[in-house]
Amino acid sequence: MGISAQIESSIQNSSMIRKMFEEGDRRRQLYGNDKVFDFSIGNPVFEPPPEVKQNLLKLIQSDEKGTHRYMPNSGYPATRRYIAGMLNRETGLPFGENDIIMTIGAGGALNVIFKTLLNPGDEVIVFKPYFLEYNAYVSNYGGQIRPVDTREDFQLDFDALEKAISGKTKAVLINSPNNPTGVVYSEADLVRLGRLLQQKSSEWGQPISLISDEPYRKIVYEKPSPSIFPCYDHALVATSYSKDLAMPGERIGYIAISPSHGDHGLVTAGAVLALRILGFVNAPALMQRLLPLVGDACVDITPYRINRDLLYNHLTSTGFSCVKPGGAFYLFPRSPIPDDVAFIEAAQQLNLLMVPGSGFGMPGYFRLCYCFETEMIERSLPLFTELARQFHLTD
Amino acid sequence: MGISAQIESSIQNSSMIRKMFEEGDRRRQLYGNDKVFDFSIGNPVFEPPPEVKQNLLKLIQSDEKGTHRYMPNSGYPATRRYIAGMLNRETGLPFGENDIIMTIGAGGALNVIFKTLLNPGDEVIVFKPYFLEYNAYVSNYGGQIRPVDTREDFQLDFDALEKAISGKTKAVLINSPNNPTGVVYSEADLVRLGRLLQQKSSEWGQPISLISDEPYRKIVYEKPSPSIFPCYDHALVATSYSKDLAMPGERIGYIAISPSHGDHGLVTAGAVLALRILGFVNAPALMQRLLPLVGDACVDITPYRINRDLLYNHLTSTGFSCVKPGGAFYLFPRSPIPDDVAFIEAAQQLNLLMVPGSGFGMPGYFRLCYCFETEMIERSLPLFTELARQFHLTD
Repeated sequence: MGISAQIESSIQNSSMIRKMFEEGDRRRQLYGNDKVFDFSIGNPVFEPPPEVKQNLLKLIQSDEKGTHRYMPNSGYPATRRYIAGMLNRETGLPFGENDIIMTIGAGGALNVIFKTLLNPGDEVIVFKPYFLEYNAYVSNYGGQIRPVDTREDFQLDFDALEKAISGKTKAVLINSPNNPTGVVYSEADLVRLGRLLQQKSSEWGQPISLISDEPYRKIVYEKPSPSIFPCYDHALVATSYSKDLAMPGERIGYIAISPSHGDHGLVTAGAVLALRILGFVNAPALMQRLLPLVGDACVDITPYRINRDLLYNHLTSTGFSCVKPGGAFYLFPRSPIPDDVAFIEAAQQLNLLMVPGSGFGMPGYFRLCYCFETEMIERSLPLFTELARQFHLTD
Repeated sequence: MGISAQIESSIQNSSMIRKMFEEGDRRRQLYGNDKVFDFSIGNPVFEPPPEVKQNLLKLIQSDEKGTHRYMPNSGYPATRRYIAGMLNRETGLPFGENDIIMTIGAGGALNVIFKTLLNPGDEVIVFKPYFLEYNAYVSNYGGQIRPVDTREDFQLDFDALEKAISGKTKAVLINSPNNPTGVVYSEADLVRLGRLLQQKSSEWGQPISLISDEPYRKIVYEKPSPSIFPCYDHALVATSYSKDLAMPGERIGYIAISPSHGDHGLVTAGAVLALRILGFVNAPALMQRLLPLVGDACVDITPYRINRDLLYNHLTSTGFSCVKPGGAFYLFPRSPIPDDVAFIEAAQQLNLLMVPGSGFGMPGYFRLCYCFETEMIERSLPLFTELARQFHLTD
């Protein structure tokens, strides 16, 4: 065997998605870029807020020495103090610089958290549908994902959750605002979640960590997405600036560990060690130094809201069934036929590229990203009408 | 158990090094920064070559859109083509963009390589002394490091290597110019290494990969450090721009896979997948775009050579025994007493901070970094004289 057996089998399993991408590329070449509507990848076309460019220039023009050197593995103390201060003002909890660990994006943050927490056989509960990469992030460290059903509106189903928790449950992972559904959990639900985890931790005699993967937290349309920290003690946040500063290519994120976490000292020391032995060491220096300078800067989410309304209204008016998202930049409508992959292939024939719900552990649905120019979305609407007609949603 | 048992035990094991750092900090506070000579960490004090600043400014001032977005997981095609072209000119081998994968530094590159190659129980051979983090990088994926003795001058011992290779050997990992010894392998030795691995691969009926961790490749004083690619087919390079561009904080490196590698297609596809599931995805976008612009730029290594000569001459003239390094910025002298930790503690009492050889799997030695201002090194020399006197190296 030339390579890892596990990697070799994963290569084979990912061939379906690769085939889809290749078909998309083939169509772009055949019909032209402007005739193929790619709703498949959440790579925003909007530019970072102007503060990013202004402050990057300032940082690079400065004559300060040593700014590209290594810093402590967990990141610059000044950047971590800045983030701790922000969390302190938001939650009232006494966050300090040692509760913050700068990471290579949220994907890096989650890997570090799972490396820190998991023993072989431990389970991590996620809610369906979910980002399938979570399976790999958890199995990388010998753990096992346990997917739990949600309600019709993709909100938490506490009965299903309660049944799924066992002595094996090491953590519950939430993602709100959610990819792929766009749902945002309410404060009442987070409080109820915290109470349930508190009770179950006592029942099983071991703390269950609550991990919140929240890179979309600032991308919300009607109501804010509340913090988990006031709702539960054993809480960790994994996040990045990829979405709110529109710079996913720059890989800057962090882990925040609740100062009230029962294993606080062990978890913070463990995460710094995990960071190092995974080869992640420090997050990119320049971007770390940028964060305190740009403060609360955020991309203008107005185009996202316009896009959401345009697509949601059009899809539902042509007969698609869809939960209205409160955040992030995804829609997760029901596929008109149970076979979501066949449906996606039919859409592809109309040059509409989307991802089947199977890619999120939930067949029978499909995902659209809408982090694109409104003009592109407007031009695509007649094709959705045609798609609805083909599947007899309209007559 | 609140966290991973493996991480918890590693935290306990790393307490010795933490204690050393704490003692260093205590001494700095007590005696002042300029009275404590920290030779322990390889974090160069020199600034990146001027091309870095000029081109970062150009990139940020540009009005080009989309430059902070995601790119393909393995990096920008233009950056990968640039690196492939450079390797092609150097080796004559037909490197293409698909043979290059941009990574979060060399530590990230090695983790991706081991995730790609290793099955549980596989062995990776390294040469003593070696960077102990390799143990973690390999055991992260169920593999096992097999350290092999080197000669008195830290050059390869082919008899010892031959005896160590077995059916379990998945890869041989070299690091030349070497951390911690500074030795550089000759072309003749790399050719001999390639022949031995070829023969052993045939004997055992499975290819042994040769992995070269070479972030110091441009930091050489007398002779260049030759490429492994012309010496062996199943070859991979893991490297970074941390040392030659003096920007270790920016985390930019790459993996290069030989176009002649027998499992070439599987290894390249596997590495892209491993990158993704480890949460590394793309390397930082801005730094990727910088690389083709700065071309062959490299820090001025003159101060490193001056420092090497200054320290090497002083240490040997005061009775220390030391192999003269041909590259990197480390010296690895023999400890005057077998207990290298006790020796390091004695040096600490003189405000000389260094790392015991035990930290590199080789007790009885110690490591000094010399990537600092020459003036600091000059000021430290009397303390080394005093240290030699204390250990009766001089009378």
